[in-house]
Parts: sequence; structure tokens; C-alpha cells
Amino acid sequence: MYKYTRAVFYYETDKMGVVHHSNYVRWLEEARTFFFNDSGVPYAQTEDAGVLIPVTNMDLKFKRFSRYGDSFTVRVKMTRYTGVRFDMAYTVVNQDGETLLEAVSGHAFVGTDYRPVALARKLPERHEAMKKLVDV
Amino acid sequence: MYKYTRAVFYYETDKMGVVHHSNYVRWLEEARTFFFNDSGVPYAQTEDAGVLIPVTNMDLKFKRFSRYGDSFTVRVKMTRYTGVRFDMAYTVVNQDGETLLEAVSGHAFVGTDYRPVALARKLPERHEAMKKLVDV
Amino acid sequence: MYKYTRAVFYYETDKMGVVHHSNYVRWLEEARTFFFNDSGVPYAQTEDAGVLIPVTNMDLKFKRFSRYGDSFTVRVKMTRYTGVRFDMAYTVVNQDGETLLEAVSGHAFVGTDYRPVALARKLPERHEAMKKLVDV
Amino acid sequence: MYKYTRAVFYYETDKMGVVHHSNYVRWLEEARTFFFNDSGVPYAQTEDAGVLIPVTNMDLKFKRFSRYGDSFTVRVKMTRYTGVRFDMAYTVVNQDGETLLEAVSGHAFVGTDYRPVALARKLPERHEAMKKLVDV
Repeated sequence: MYKYTRAVFYYETDKMGVVHHSNYVRWLEEARTFFFNDSGVPYAQTEDAGVLIPVTNMDLKFKRFSRYGDSFTVRVKMTRYTGVRFDMAYTVVNQDGETLLEAVSGHAFVGTDYRPVALARKLPERHEAMKKLVDV
Repeated sequence: MYKYTRAVFYYETDKMGVVHHSNYVRWLEEARTFFFNDSGVPYAQTEDAGVLIPVTNMDLKFKRFSRYGDSFTVRVKMTRYTGVRFDMAYTVVNQDGETLLEAVSGHAFVGTDYRPVALARKLPERHEAMKKLVDV
Repeated sequence: MYKYTRAVFYYETDKMGVVHHSNYVRWLEEARTFFFNDSGVPYAQTEDAGVLIPVTNMDLKFKRFSRYGDSFTVRVKMTRYTGVRFDMAYTVVNQDGETLLEAVSGHAFVGTDYRPVALARKLPERHEAMKKLVDV
Repeated sequence: MYKYTRAVFYYETDKMGVVHHSNYVRWLEEARTFFFNDSGVPYAQTEDAGVLIPVTNMDLKFKRFSRYGDSFTVRVKMTRYTGVRFDMAYTVVNQDGETLLEAVSGHAFVGTDYRPVALARKLPERHEAMKKLVDV
């Protein structure tokens, strides 16, 4: 399973003294894009080829607070890929291995006109590469 | 049902040309806190009284893109309140009434030590006020 | 002088218990874009016409903290306009009229290829409208 | 001179297709806090000891756009330290060594009541350590 780790940034905290929950959504994106970059289907290249990958749904279960001074690791994998959409699953833990967040996200492919596209037709090689990333 | 409206800010967009999905999470918080402020249980006062209200879970279904130049309205209500936790439901629409997002969130009460507290015991008047906000 | 007011959002605070300084930069953008929208040169339309307006420089003097529960007002004006660039000046005050920030920003016009353009040539009507906004 | 490098995150871009200028302010904070962490005066510990370090002023000269797919390096140093305040200078470059931003920032020490404190009196050892970081 792919892992992405970094330190919490100061500006990610809020007046509650912990990381604001909206930033977990951004951490998932960081992990997801690095996962694709390191799996041979770089996110920037997919966009440059005219295919955008919006988030269609997201389910977040916040388990524990993250603090400034902590680091976090996102464990991410692709759980489903249909050619027109895919799902990702994430577990975020802190430096002590304690779970901060459990999450899943769904994604679709759209063109630069924001209309759905089939990756198999639009970018067949990338489609083949993504198909192989599924890890159930 | 409580409604909160504002314009999309430029910095909320991303290179896809639409509002970044993480900002929807922030819009929900804006609407939720204004809902409490306008319902007689101001969020800032609850915190000043030593009770924090973290998000415990969130479910987001993204329906449509939001663009710079658009405005949005969050329709928000409390769907459950137990004294130790509560749930909120949201529909976000654009200026044409088209649905951008359907969402629910769960919340708990914790003290400044981040441990769960029963609002009924800690802030009984506020507990009574919140109980009355449930709208199923 | 144009004025833009809103409440501080919870997610704009950091663990210091006050608004994170980076958000002041975003408040200035909010005020600046609403100023243009309300002055007959809507920001979104300028971009749709192929002219982007990046920030070239910014000078910020932070005078006082802003807290959750506070509101703020940005007083903004254009202090210089040359046809290829312009300057803006801002004073941000809280609900008690106390100064939070004094700032200036510089801006240029670029095309969608990120290269400088002269607004007078590219969008002459908009150029005439912007020229009249200077308030020294 | 201390250097801090990372990749641009997707959510840091805006509809102009480049990194939103407000995020450069956050990059400076990332670099500044890691600089202190790696110089024996960890930022989190200073705060835990009751001393906050707000930004008092900031001057930003934006030289070039940063894009998704790029990485950046912040070169940062302390240019002045008086015991009650200090200044930092930054140059941000991209992966090709091209300058993205030139910036300076000023900082003060305040207690948890947000009132100025002299670090020499409040945290003398930390004061000695910071004094040695000046690099003109």
C-alpha cells in the first residue's frame, strides 16, 4: 500500500489547537496525487492530456486530533476502477501509528468541457496503467 | 430551514477552473456556525464557555461544479441531537437553484482537554436551546 | 472609498487563537474583486475576455489580531493606473474601528499565455473604465 | 543558508492555472518553522513555553508563476534579532533555479495574552540560541 508522510504545517491548525478538519481533505489529495505520480500515471500529465479527475463523493470518519508538532502518514490504495470512475480508500495515522482518519473517495473522468469521458477511449495507455493499480 | 448565501471567492478555485472540493467543507462550517449564531447558541460563546465542537464524520456527494462568478446557498438543519452529539444535513445550491452538494456531518462535544463532555451537565441552558433546534 | 465587510470564519483562525496572517491576503483579494465588480469592471468578465490580473507585489503591516467572533471591514482604493499595471491601497479595521492591517498591492495585466498585455489595446473600454477608478 | 523544498500541491493552484499568491505566504511559514526546528529552537516548543511569534510585517515581490507539477525551494535566513523582534529574508526558486518570490518578514514575541514579551527575560536559553542564528 502506498504511503505518504509529512509534518503538520502551522497554518493547518485552528483555534481549537488542532488541525482543521478541512485540511484532512487536502492531505488525501496530496497522497492521492503522489500515489498516481509514483505509479506511472502522473496527475499533471493526465490533465495536460485534457482529462480532469474531479471528486464525486467522499466519506470521512475523524478518529483523533492531529496537532502542530505531529506528522502524519496517509496509506492510500485504489479499491475499484471501471474506466469511467474509480474509488480510493485511505487511513491516516500519526507518528505513533494512531489512526486520525478513515476515508474513501470516488472520482470520475471529465474533459476540459467538464463532461464525462471514458479514459479507455480518450487515453487508452493511461487506462491500462490505471486498471492495474486496483488493490482490493 | 436555515439558509446561508455568499459569492464564490477567487482563491477558492483551482486549476480545474472550478471551486476546489475542500472548500465545500469550509462552506458547510460557515453555514453551520451562522446557523448556531442566529439560533441563540453562538458558536464563539460555546467555545468561550469551554466546550469545543469537533466534526466526527462527514459524508459529501458532489453533484455539480461551482465557478468563480457564481454564488451559493447552503440549506442547513440539525437532524439529531442526543446531548453528547448531533448531526447536521446540508444541501448546497447555486444561484440557479442547481444542487452543488448534498452532505451530512456528525459532531461531538469536548472540553478544552479534548475529552467528551455532556452538554446537559456542562452548559444546561445551551443544551436546552440546542435540543429545540432539531428539525427532522 | 469602497468598503467590504464580513465576519471572520472559524477556519481562518490558527492555534494562536487569532486569524492566520495568510488569510489577510485573501481578504484583500475579496475586497479588491468586489470593488471591481461594483465599479463596472467585473473581475470574472475581464478573465473571460482573456486578461488575467496577477499580483506583482504586496506590502503588509499587521497592526492588531483579529479573532473569531469579530468582523472586519476592508477599505480599498486604486492609487495608480498606468494601463499596463495598477496599485491598490487597503486599510482593514475590526468592528470597533481598530486597524488590523495596512497594505498595498501592485498588479499587472497578462494574457492567458501569462505574457504582459496592455489593457488599452486588448480591452479599450475596460481600460477607460479602470482609468477613472484612480482615487489619490 | 537554510533550504526547504517540496512539490506544489494541486489545491494550491487557482483558476489562473498557477499557485495562488496567498500560498506563497504559507510556504514562507513552512520554511521559517522548519528553519527554527532544525536550528535547535523548535517552534512548537517555544509556543508550549508560552511565547507566540506573530508576523508584524511582510514584503512580497512576486517574480514568476509557480505551476502544478513544479517544486519550489525556499532559501531563508534571519537578518536581524533584537531580543524583542527579528527579521527574516527569503528567496523562493523553482526546480530550474528561477526566482519565484523575494520576501522579507518581521516578527515579534508575545505571551499567551498577546502582549509583547522580551525573550531574554522569558526564555533566556532560547534567546541565546536565536541570537546566534543571525546571518547578514
